[in-house]
Amino acid sequence: MKNNQTASALPIHRYQAYHEQFSVDLPDRTWPTKHMSKAPRWCAVDLRDGNQSLIDPMSPERKRIMFDLLVRIGYKEIEVGFPSASQTDFDFVRSLIDEGAIPDDVTIQVLTQAREHLIKRTYESIAGAKQAIVHLYNSTSILQREVVFRETKQGIIDLALFGARMCKSMEATIPGTTVYYEYSPESFTGTELEFAVEVSNQVIEIFEPTPERKVIINLPATVEMATPNIYADSIEWMSRHLAHRENVLLSLHPHNDRGTAIAAAELGYLAGADRIEGCLFGNGERTGNVDLVALGVNLFTQGIDPQIDFSDIDAIKRTAEYCNQLPVPERSPWAGDLVFTAFSGSHQDAIKKGFESMDAQAAADGCTVNDLVWAVPYLPIDPKDLGRSYEAVIRVNSQSGKGGVAYLLKTDHSLDLPRKLQIEFSGVVQTKTDAEGGEVTSEEIWNIFNDEYLPAEHTHPDAKWGRFELFSTRTTSDLAGSVDLTVDLRDGDEKSTVTGTGNGPINAFLTVMTGRGIAITLYDYVEHAMSAGGDALAASYVELDVNGKRYWGVGIDADISTASLKAVVSAVNRGIRVEQQHAAAPELATV
Amino acid sequence: MKNNQTASALPIHRYQAYHEQFSVDLPDRTWPTKHMSKAPRWCAVDLRDGNQSLIDPMSPERKRIMFDLLVRIGYKEIEVGFPSASQTDFDFVRSLIDEGAIPDDVTIQVLTQAREHLIKRTYESIAGAKQAIVHLYNSTSILQREVVFRETKQGIIDLALFGARMCKSMEATIPGTTVYYEYSPESFTGTELEFAVEVSNQVIEIFEPTPERKVIINLPATVEMATPNIYADSIEWMSRHLAHRENVLLSLHPHNDRGTAIAAAELGYLAGADRIEGCLFGNGERTGNVDLVALGVNLFTQGIDPQIDFSDIDAIKRTAEYCNQLPVPERSPWAGDLVFTAFSGSHQDAIKKGFESMDAQAAADGCTVNDLVWAVPYLPIDPKDLGRSYEAVIRVNSQSGKGGVAYLLKTDHSLDLPRKLQIEFSGVVQTKTDAEGGEVTSEEIWNIFNDEYLPAEHTHPDAKWGRFELFSTRTTSDLAGSVDLTVDLRDGDEKSTVTGTGNGPINAFLTVMTGRGIAITLYDYVEHAMSAGGDALAASYVELDVNGKRYWGVGIDADISTASLKAVVSAVNRGIRVEQQHAAAPELATV
Repeated sequence: MKNNQTASALPIHRYQAYHEQFSVDLPDRTWPTKHMSKAPRWCAVDLRDGNQSLIDPMSPERKRIMFDLLVRIGYKEIEVGFPSASQTDFDFVRSLIDEGAIPDDVTIQVLTQAREHLIKRTYESIAGAKQAIVHLYNSTSILQREVVFRETKQGIIDLALFGARMCKSMEATIPGTTVYYEYSPESFTGTELEFAVEVSNQVIEIFEPTPERKVIINLPATVEMATPNIYADSIEWMSRHLAHRENVLLSLHPHNDRGTAIAAAELGYLAGADRIEGCLFGNGERTGNVDLVALGVNLFTQGIDPQIDFSDIDAIKRTAEYCNQLPVPERSPWAGDLVFTAFSGSHQDAIKKGFESMDAQAAADGCTVNDLVWAVPYLPIDPKDLGRSYEAVIRVNSQSGKGGVAYLLKTDHSLDLPRKLQIEFSGVVQTKTDAEGGEVTSEEIWNIFNDEYLPAEHTHPDAKWGRFELFSTRTTSDLAGSVDLTVDLRDGDEKSTVTGTGNGPINAFLTVMTGRGIAITLYDYVEHAMSAGGDALAASYVELDVNGKRYWGVGIDADISTASLKAVVSAVNRGIRVEQQHAAAPELATV
Repeated sequence: MKNNQTASALPIHRYQAYHEQFSVDLPDRTWPTKHMSKAPRWCAVDLRDGNQSLIDPMSPERKRIMFDLLVRIGYKEIEVGFPSASQTDFDFVRSLIDEGAIPDDVTIQVLTQAREHLIKRTYESIAGAKQAIVHLYNSTSILQREVVFRETKQGIIDLALFGARMCKSMEATIPGTTVYYEYSPESFTGTELEFAVEVSNQVIEIFEPTPERKVIINLPATVEMATPNIYADSIEWMSRHLAHRENVLLSLHPHNDRGTAIAAAELGYLAGADRIEGCLFGNGERTGNVDLVALGVNLFTQGIDPQIDFSDIDAIKRTAEYCNQLPVPERSPWAGDLVFTAFSGSHQDAIKKGFESMDAQAAADGCTVNDLVWAVPYLPIDPKDLGRSYEAVIRVNSQSGKGGVAYLLKTDHSLDLPRKLQIEFSGVVQTKTDAEGGEVTSEEIWNIFNDEYLPAEHTHPDAKWGRFELFSTRTTSDLAGSVDLTVDLRDGDEKSTVTGTGNGPINAFLTVMTGRGIAITLYDYVEHAMSAGGDALAASYVELDVNGKRYWGVGIDADISTASLKAVVSAVNRGIRVEQQHAAAPELATV
């Protein structure tokens, strides 16, 4: 079986293998035989490295939301900015301190270059904090020494030592703040190991670390340049050669240029690191910093507590997407919209048998499945442990060649469904047609969609269903964040005019529904205009928790605000209908 | 410096470390000291594993476009479906063969389970192909044996051997086709190594491989369950224990559940594998298959030819996005919209110095920079080698707290700019305001945007600029894929009515422009409706190559087709203006 691959025209003469440029000689490496047993110290750098890589940097409001999220889920070391390089970063650090936003057990970290006026400014930024990590860096790589700094090795060392001494001398200016230190030989992966350890060890001597006041030596893959085993070798080598190792926290800061940052962090941790810097969902320069969510949940799947609360991963994702204004990809580990789906029949069958087997085991053991070790094929984790659910998606094709359900709704009806609604609706179509792998017409799909999500739009009154129906809406905003809403509403057979107040129309409407005994939480909200010309309608999609279960709802209206309230009604009606069906068929509910 | 991290509420008792379930004992592993020196054999499974994981599977037209892409860029082994499991897969395989779409040096691969009627159907699907790989699999994992098949080890072996013998016996039914074999002990990562090698070796005996007709043994991380070094250990172990190893192609098939599939493939390749199966940009079940683009370009950065043509990575991305109807994430290695950007001043400065240093070196050596080894900080590769460009983005804030340029255009003007246009426009704003890190008002941003992209919209005639202006458009479609376009156009001072023909209005208009001496290639096209109520306009964005340089253009109109032609005019006018400025200032052009 001949290999028919042929040479491409790519200019390979322009690139050199890493091992031809840098030698990491460690034949007695120990990391490949080691196992993880506890979480590393985490440091979240979303507000610095993450923010610095956004087309639109975070506003102060979005920064604060990110900071509060990181604190809430359990990060204790948070790099909050580069205050000497940017007034907005400076102001943000000050606001955290002045507004008392930093819990006592959280340590903020600020980045600075080794220059006098920048270090002074850095200390001004952290005055008044209970404690802070001053993160000093200078680039040590061969390339940057030659091209950027045009400096000898000794010049680079002198710069680092100048910075370290300057930091020490500035401590006296902020006596109320306990200062810890982090030093990064930046572009570590482009630096000879012997030189990286020489700079680091001289800096360590200046900082005089003790067991109670360790110094952090951070070894960044500023650019990821080699396979992750090479990074692990270099970390183990550094760990063996760092001075006062017992007083050093060895920290990793992998970037993802080659797509192997998660592996680099994990193998580097096996190689002796104590601490990992990264961002939620891998935000950061270029291809991103290492993904802290993936690293944390990876530990969890091995029975190790990441010490971070990932139990509502959708809420974390939503907040990060809002702050970064970047979507978390559909296939992002543990968090993407598609990662707990199964499309193929054989996978779905195996998963079903896995669930059944766990149920049988729990019954035999007299416990619940939550007490058992998770064991379901094709699902490496119980999605429920992250607040998610498993979705078996049976895809329905329309006439061959015309594409699937989501495609048809988009092309024929201008409805661009969110991924998770696409998944939910596939299940609805499947149930109503019972056509496994079969085909339905575009018209059938549209009828099913209307009946399920837009029952009040039926032209024939007998086809309408649903406890609630919306007739008109009026909103009054005081321009100070409060909205008064008045709606004409049908609840069963009774029509009435009701009012509610909230920070927006949806929020106000949820209070109306709560007043009618429906417990609702809003999970997701998406809207879009449906066309450029002609009728000019808006479509709105909401994901709600209705009395403990999740449902999507859809609303279409010329007014975007009304469309969103219609979507809430759609989801609530669907939830109530399921409850009523279960109540009417108790023998099914107990199976 | 105390570690303040505390226990989360995650149910860690439900998960068990991989090494407590599976033992891979290989103290004398050799892979950590090895280096890659050539490309593996690639097998692209986009049309099977990739397609099987899409909410809307590919239509036959999209499948064919994907197949042709894979062939064009150099893949020689392509898994094209699971024909016995799906009529659409069967029809697609037949169409490839019957339409003569498979070049002689390309081998298609088809998946089948080890069941008689499925194997028969599989051979029907490939009859008439010059050669094909029949890919036989059955699951061998502990969990699937217990839960799904309720079978002993011997039962699982018998199933595999039955399938292998059945395949052999079917060869006689398609004498014109050379059949090769691949066997996968599916869920290999959940299988005891001793058992995986036992099944595989017995299957190998049935297939009687020779050096000329090797058998492929594929070891899938159907679910990625451990760090990639463990996978590499298991591959090296298998490589040592497989029978007739010299007649076996050891193949990898990593999935990305833990986010380390690229690392697993690379370390597994170092561990002795010959072949890697994956998908472009990591499409595939759940978190995806391993990303073939990342693997290939990673090799390239080490001076190794991937034997795949990645020289126009944007074209590959665009086609994959069209076929999969899934976006390639902004930070996807080597291909995302943000991976060749630099936002921070220190990075931009270092990159600038890197370019200058290379220019100086080339001048000193009497060669071009294309002859030199690439050496620019923060850019691990020359973006030009992939048909991309480096973008230095200096971000401009509007009044603090109101967000950046893209945010303002979206909220104030309903324009949702593509990421790459956001990046381009940031540079435009920067040039016009010269306000590094400074602030501009929302009104200033809007004026700059209008002047740059929509000059014909100016109400004051003196402010208009641009060689071309569009007055009216008429299109006639024959519903058979051909569109006749007539436009009233100003070219300089001359107004005329011109016509063109193409497969769509944009294509037809490009022929018009070509007729006027402008060489244009369309790179990207995005459109959206601008509002739900009221004026109901559409915005259209195009990225064009105009006489060798790339420009974005913007068009706004009530008619979506007209908006797109206006966008072409916008980009062309911008390109011509830059050329004229260079021509008028030759001293600048030669700096």
